[in-house]
Amino acid sequence: MATHGNKKKMTDQELMVKAIHLAKEKMLAGEGGPFGAIIARDGVIIAQGWNQVTSSNDPTAHAEIVCIRNACAALQSFDLTGYELFVNCEPCPMCLAAAYWAKLERIIYGADHNDAAAIGFADAFIYEELTLDKDKRSIQMQQLMVQEARDGLSLWLDLEQKVLY
Amino acid sequence: MATHGNKKKMTDQELMVKAIHLAKEKMLAGEGGPFGAIIARDGVIIAQGWNQVTSSNDPTAHAEIVCIRNACAALQSFDLTGYELFVNCEPCPMCLAAAYWAKLERIIYGADHNDAAAIGFADAFIYEELTLDKDKRSIQMQQLMVQEARDGLSLWLDLEQKVLY
Repeated sequence: MATHGNKKKMTDQELMVKAIHLAKEKMLAGEGGPFGAIIARDGVIIAQGWNQVTSSNDPTAHAEIVCIRNACAALQSFDLTGYELFVNCEPCPMCLAAAYWAKLERIIYGADHNDAAAIGFADAFIYEELTLDKDKRSIQMQQLMVQEARDGLSLWLDLEQKVLY
Repeated sequence: MATHGNKKKMTDQELMVKAIHLAKEKMLAGEGGPFGAIIARDGVIIAQGWNQVTSSNDPTAHAEIVCIRNACAALQSFDLTGYELFVNCEPCPMCLAAAYWAKLERIIYGADHNDAAAIGFADAFIYEELTLDKDKRSIQMQQLMVQEARDGLSLWLDLEQKVLY
């Protein structure tokens, strides 16, 4: 879904209008929730994405995740340094953390996570859960075989020819 | 990558051994970072996943995300209520939030996010960033066209025949 060849330079406002429009269009087409995202650099679009959770049976298919995956596929890189994300609603913690992993430079958003909560989405709840101690969260978390797991991780340090990310 | 047909009932410990083994095996095969995940219900495996960030040029291809996507594909559902995630290292905020969206019941993890940080991964840093006010984060965040974005979101409430998630 990356938009190649379109080298038109757009303003932040024009890119946000596009993200808002995408969200509406794809929601009305039955793709999923009302969320749309654009990734651009210097005002030039490299990829777009929209929520496809219900249409693709993928709870991770939020607009931003889809857009990051599309941008990385277009660039053949897992590193989006210098790129910017335009999205009609503040990213949930999944998508915000994905933006960090992708090394995005800037996030421009419209509505916020409380607005998402107001129309029935769990964004605010999940932000809240992540601040709680593990034993207070609604998902049960349990640690097991710590030393064996740590020993496994330490192999990474000795691995030669690894690609860092 | 879902494992069908294997109806063997495994203990938590056996499932964790498998996740640790998967992490090591796929890391040594050059797939990506040293992380492996299993999704099971009542001790029966439905899917597995491993880190493929560098091999698939996808910064969202963490073991848990890949595993959730595989489980949902196997079940043809975006809802993993009743399923459990076994992973050799505590999920990062992206993967933990994905577990909430997928409605996973329980997360059993080995090493924790500080252990991941100790071998060079950004997990602890991202957990910290998410607790900061937006203007203090290392990714610049900027709100734009709030009212237009809110108006778009509100269309969701009036949409008929929508699939909730």
